Amino acid sequence: MTEALPPGATIGILGGGQLGRMLAVAAAELGLKCHIFCPDPDSPAFDVSAAQTIAAYDDRDALEAFVRSVDAVTYEFENVDLGAAEQIAALKPLRPGAKALEVSQDRLNEKQFLAGKDIPVGGFLTVDPFEPSARTLEFLFERLGETIVMKTRRFGYDGKGQAILKRDGGGLETLAGFAGQDVIFEAFVPFAREVSIMAVRGSDGEIAAYDVTENVHADHILATSTVPAGIQPETEQEARRIAARILHGLDYVGVLGIEFFVVGESGGEKLLVNEIAPRVHNSGHWTQDGCAVSQFENHIRAVADWPLGPTDRHSDIVMTNLIGQDAAEWRALAADPQARLHLYGKSEIRPGRKMGHVNRVTRRT
Amino acid sequence: MTEALPPGATIGILGGGQLGRMLAVAAAELGLKCHIFCPDPDSPAFDVSAAQTIAAYDDRDALEAFVRSVDAVTYEFENVDLGAAEQIAALKPLRPGAKALEVSQDRLNEKQFLAGKDIPVGGFLTVDPFEPSARTLEFLFERLGETIVMKTRRFGYDGKGQAILKRDGGGLETLAGFAGQDVIFEAFVPFAREVSIMAVRGSDGEIAAYDVTENVHADHILATSTVPAGIQPETEQEARRIAARILHGLDYVGVLGIEFFVVGESGGEKLLVNEIAPRVHNSGHWTQDGCAVSQFENHIRAVADWPLGPTDRHSDIVMTNLIGQDAAEWRALAADPQARLHLYGKSEIRPGRKMGHVNRVTRRT
Repeated sequence: MTEALPPGATIGILGGGQLGRMLAVAAAELGLKCHIFCPDPDSPAFDVSAAQTIAAYDDRDALEAFVRSVDAVTYEFENVDLGAAEQIAALKPLRPGAKALEVSQDRLNEKQFLAGKDIPVGGFLTVDPFEPSARTLEFLFERLGETIVMKTRRFGYDGKGQAILKRDGGGLETLAGFAGQDVIFEAFVPFAREVSIMAVRGSDGEIAAYDVTENVHADHILATSTVPAGIQPETEQEARRIAARILHGLDYVGVLGIEFFVVGESGGEKLLVNEIAPRVHNSGHWTQDGCAVSQFENHIRAVADWPLGPTDRHSDIVMTNLIGQDAAEWRALAADPQARLHLYGKSEIRPGRKMGHVNRVTRRT
Repeated sequence: MTEALPPGATIGILGGGQLGRMLAVAAAELGLKCHIFCPDPDSPAFDVSAAQTIAAYDDRDALEAFVRSVDAVTYEFENVDLGAAEQIAALKPLRPGAKALEVSQDRLNEKQFLAGKDIPVGGFLTVDPFEPSARTLEFLFERLGETIVMKTRRFGYDGKGQAILKRDGGGLETLAGFAGQDVIFEAFVPFAREVSIMAVRGSDGEIAAYDVTENVHADHILATSTVPAGIQPETEQEARRIAARILHGLDYVGVLGIEFFVVGESGGEKLLVNEIAPRVHNSGHWTQDGCAVSQFENHIRAVADWPLGPTDRHSDIVMTNLIGQDAAEWRALAADPQARLHLYGKSEIRPGRKMGHVNRVTRRT
């Protein structure tokens, strides 16, 4: 462990969305200041931070001035340019480090890293050079089965940059739509449920993890996270073991989100890692009202070289995202005594936009 | 109830200390912005607010620009100038209103208001004009008893502007030290314990109150607040009834703190109101970790014309203030899994300065 940042020190955060905002609030509770770097002058995180830089992520001069003004740097999204990460790490601690970015911002790197650590993942392959043809399509179905998920290797999120290929028609056209892009083909996993775990590692190698949550998506966007997840205790333990292996394997510092597919029925459940996110994660928002120390505070603690806080859960929670017009119901939600309302201060409601979330305490444990 | 402030609206806060800071964080959770008005460029609340005005409280131009830029105004201290309050209220909702300020910023007004509402208070009187003399002293002892607390009527806090007069010596000198000031003389109350209650009233007249907390002071500064307080259920109910009478009597909107002396032993407990604070209060900080909705969020809800949140308590809490050098122990406190640490981001540790507080969960209920 290096020297802990004392209260009054400043953490730089790349990205000014809701994750940066909730990190900044958590930092403030500990007496730490935040400096937010984001190109959008309307960034939600600006409203709760001590300093702001409005500049493009590839503005290296602005980035350098930002890094020099802070004591450590973290980020709210995994697509930080690796050159920028190198520039930052040469000046100040960057947490999580460049390795986590390199692995997680490219789906192929990520799958190869996981498979290399003997962590179970679904079938995947790449074709290079990739030519959309009937022969390629046939090859893919032979190797990966009747249903294939084709994804761009980089910059995909919330279902963007993804398509389904099915043997019984339309595949070639879909394939052609991705021509010229770096793609990864994944065997469709007929999962019973989707779950995730938020785990955290301090710079001294200390590890902690929150309880596994069960996630339901709608239109490829997270709709609800429910904890406890309806999985077996051994499956929960397996998720923790996988998390520890990934955290150590990446020499990671901070909170990491891991999304899993659960395959097989109760009694024969198995986990496959779907993807990892080197940051706080939407499916960990329940920790704000289900635990004494949230994922946001624990990420800040790790970044600041503080001891990790407890991750044990004191309540059963259902987290519901407020997407687009859902947020127009704020009056009714504010009046619901079971609903802990978290709004992100976004000025404009847009379809598909994450405007806030609600944590409902269903039981105190 | 007037029209509720929608998410994205801005609440103006007079005062940029730790109370303003924690109010701003609570507002952010609800998607509301804060604009802090404070003369101190190092104000802790600046770090978590969307806008800041650094100006003297008597700078009426700065105040007007500030008020015009926000949607409602509140404050973190009761010594807001009544002329300024009038100027604010002419433009935007001021919550709590001027009446609460008028009553609470003058100890004599406050005692007279309480006595006029049949709320039990200790003996008090003023002498006008006040001349320090042996005869005055004798008169005071005759009326108020052997031990008298002399206080300036205005601007006292944390024991400042107070002195004790005892019949058995030194009284005249102490009395002379307050010559030329407006003072109030209070009978010393031989209290068994000190307790307080945080109550909140919405603009529609809805009332809620948190559980009573027992407070221990050291050097006239709050040291610890413990909840539940060691009082009888009927005493707790009496505190709630008194709170309701005060809130309605002031046509109050927001959180109000009421400090009581408990006199008499268990079985014959009686409450006397010591003082009221028209704002969130140090002895209500336990609500951050003992309730789903803290005093800060409920104050913001009331100011923004939102429905009040639940005030029921889910945990037993001991709140300990971190005064001066106590805050140097932040590493050890951060490592204590029972301690929820709240630091105010003050740049300099000074003796007697409130640097933060710790909430220890002693039992989940």
